[in-house]
Amino acid sequence: MKKILGTSLLIFGMVVFGQTKEDSVQFSKISTEILNHGKGYEELRDLTKNIGHRLSGSKAYDQSVKWAEQKLREAGADKVWLQEVMIPVWERGQESLHIKTADGKWKSLKMLSLGNSEGTGGKDVWGEIIMVKSMEEYEKLPAEKVKDKIVFFNYPFSQSFVETFRGYGDAAKYRVNAASLTAKKGGKFAIIRSLSSAFDDVPHTGAMRYEDKIPKVPAAAIGNTTADELETLLKKQKVTAKLNSNCGMKGEKLSYSVIGEITGRKDNSVIVVGGHLDSWDVGEGAHDDGAGIVQSIEVLRTFKKLGIQNNHTIRVICFANEENGLKGGLQYGKSVKDKNEKHLFAIESDAGGFAPRGIAMEMDDAKRNQIKSWAKLFFPYGVYNFEGIYSGADISPLQQMGIPTAELVPDSQRYFDIHHTEEDTFEKVNRRELLLGATAMTQLIYMIDKNW
Amino acid sequence: MKKILGTSLLIFGMVVFGQTKEDSVQFSKISTEILNHGKGYEELRDLTKNIGHRLSGSKAYDQSVKWAEQKLREAGADKVWLQEVMIPVWERGQESLHIKTADGKWKSLKMLSLGNSEGTGGKDVWGEIIMVKSMEEYEKLPAEKVKDKIVFFNYPFSQSFVETFRGYGDAAKYRVNAASLTAKKGGKFAIIRSLSSAFDDVPHTGAMRYEDKIPKVPAAAIGNTTADELETLLKKQKVTAKLNSNCGMKGEKLSYSVIGEITGRKDNSVIVVGGHLDSWDVGEGAHDDGAGIVQSIEVLRTFKKLGIQNNHTIRVICFANEENGLKGGLQYGKSVKDKNEKHLFAIESDAGGFAPRGIAMEMDDAKRNQIKSWAKLFFPYGVYNFEGIYSGADISPLQQMGIPTAELVPDSQRYFDIHHTEEDTFEKVNRRELLLGATAMTQLIYMIDKNW
Repeated sequence: MKKILGTSLLIFGMVVFGQTKEDSVQFSKISTEILNHGKGYEELRDLTKNIGHRLSGSKAYDQSVKWAEQKLREAGADKVWLQEVMIPVWERGQESLHIKTADGKWKSLKMLSLGNSEGTGGKDVWGEIIMVKSMEEYEKLPAEKVKDKIVFFNYPFSQSFVETFRGYGDAAKYRVNAASLTAKKGGKFAIIRSLSSAFDDVPHTGAMRYEDKIPKVPAAAIGNTTADELETLLKKQKVTAKLNSNCGMKGEKLSYSVIGEITGRKDNSVIVVGGHLDSWDVGEGAHDDGAGIVQSIEVLRTFKKLGIQNNHTIRVICFANEENGLKGGLQYGKSVKDKNEKHLFAIESDAGGFAPRGIAMEMDDAKRNQIKSWAKLFFPYGVYNFEGIYSGADISPLQQMGIPTAELVPDSQRYFDIHHTEEDTFEKVNRRELLLGATAMTQLIYMIDKNW
Repeated sequence: MKKILGTSLLIFGMVVFGQTKEDSVQFSKISTEILNHGKGYEELRDLTKNIGHRLSGSKAYDQSVKWAEQKLREAGADKVWLQEVMIPVWERGQESLHIKTADGKWKSLKMLSLGNSEGTGGKDVWGEIIMVKSMEEYEKLPAEKVKDKIVFFNYPFSQSFVETFRGYGDAAKYRVNAASLTAKKGGKFAIIRSLSSAFDDVPHTGAMRYEDKIPKVPAAAIGNTTADELETLLKKQKVTAKLNSNCGMKGEKLSYSVIGEITGRKDNSVIVVGGHLDSWDVGEGAHDDGAGIVQSIEVLRTFKKLGIQNNHTIRVICFANEENGLKGGLQYGKSVKDKNEKHLFAIESDAGGFAPRGIAMEMDDAKRNQIKSWAKLFFPYGVYNFEGIYSGADISPLQQMGIPTAELVPDSQRYFDIHHTEEDTFEKVNRRELLLGATAMTQLIYMIDKNW
């Protein structure tokens, strides 16, 4: 492409006047400030490269707490504090998965134990693999066919949904439930095809859950390529799998969410913007959710930098333990209830640092329609979709208390290529896309602070 | 993020009935077919990895002509042919740029001669660098201050525009005009800061133009990091630059655009979808414009695969020589005029294989408003912006003949990080983003074919 577009070509014919014009000017100031002077991208580089992944309970998580405290101070927070949270400690340790086919040789497979899974206690556990393509197929299997077997839940991530979160939602029950389903019929452990939109061999971890009173057998994920190869093998012959792992829950530990705020000029009612500071223990937790953290800090910095006089308190929360417990979000909700602290609104960014496309909301129709009435202001920033009815996991306790909540909706096409994997690295984040997400949240909070 | 969205969360509450429902179902079939079975991504891998970059007149371009012919046949075209085009041949050859500061040592800079630039004939050409930050600053300089100097046009790509094409448009005059501006005041050659949105050291090439009757001095681009360093040096001391290059125009050559079509059931009026087959001679021409080529072929394949009964002829054009001459587009326009061949509509994809956001259009208000009236159908596919008033360069001759033209509008945030560089590789293209672009074009052509 060599064509050069004239300026007129990308003006959207938006008519601005009066109040709308003032807001439109403020939107532009916010965008110009962040795209030119935003620090989120360099902060994300620092967090991901100098601290790296930061699973709840790890030393890296503790480092990230100090890091977030410092960054909030640097951004100009009037007040920064830590909120105590008891978090579960899960450790991966060593792990290996091998298969043996007719030739009698063991072959190592690339794999990741699922988060929260128990391991084999460092011993080899093996058995014949039985493959199912769906829950329905598994349910029909008599228990005696599963007993002492390894169950391979070979359910593919659907490419059909345009929004990849729907493909993720569709397949997630396999990750969450595979172990207990396997145990209920006497199987030894479960293997799942990763929840991955990519055609590659990268295994994706993520939280699984044990049902009460069911033996806790291990569960592990393999990448799509390995799953394809295993599927082909199993159509032709018996395959034995052998797992050796010492992952598992190691009790609880005191940890922290990190909170910083700029005080409201008019009152102390709170507007929350946040992300989660923890990540899985692979990759760098860049999109999930280093992006949400640095974007939230950028919101605060931009208010200070532009001297926007906020009526209400704007509070940035770097939540602890989203990935395998949600304890940070739960603790924050409890503290709000205990202190009877008035909250106007909360938004989370936890769907990747990609170019923003919209704001999803959970709130009454009056408030929803008011936000929708601002759509023309957002349009020039690529933010147009106000139809989603959901919000961030960490702020779900606030939602349950009746507080209006929201989530930034970035483009979803690339997220599940790298989600919960060694590939979720800084290099996968684009500077402008990340900063435009921070821009949209700052603009929304500016409007809410002014109008609510 | 571990939250799992229910299906209901991402349905957009679109009311569909009657004709709209039929179209909505067809949109969904198109999307499902392409996202699951589209071949564009693997074809792009083949084109970029097995042929690579393909500048007009190169052997690789000739290979790509055969490749496109074959792919169009495989996609099910009823007819495939080559259209002869005389194209300019520009060759880069060897090139080097060095600077010398107070320490007397020459230091090599990473650089690329601009496309269509003449070189130094393999000789060293050197002189003192004079830096200007803008056209205005350059215009004020008396000729005697420029004479025998090297002019460094150090104009930065603006990060302020949300649409990066505006930043590109804003800076492009430096690339296009730097050489002739330099020559007019007696300078020896021009260096420009690359038209790049990235904070890296990758030089961007791209077309420049010589004014008539002005000596043809060379022009070269350096990456942002090198430009920053050079700027710092020039604020402190005199710097000499030395260029040695043997790029230049090597006459004309017979080449080809590649055309394939599926015949209309009702009439022979033509709907065009295309991209350009040539690329610059660095990187792999993946986003620019391998993406547009494979997306256009995907449109044809999808019509055949789904058995959509097209009323009008749907013609895929892989244009020759967009980058440094536009001869393919001009020749096609001439042939349409010569044959008096009725054309209903033409769309090009030449803004990168990123997730689509809209359709830009140049046509009368009645047609524009009709397409806008389909917006609700496109919304679930992330295509919402019908405000742009421009269309592809290769189809500009058709536009000038009064034919309604359009361009696919992908997200623009990443394009100018890699545009016209060694970084424009297959790895920078996401499968789903690429295929959603093909989906949007297929859906639009389905609607136009049915309704026009």
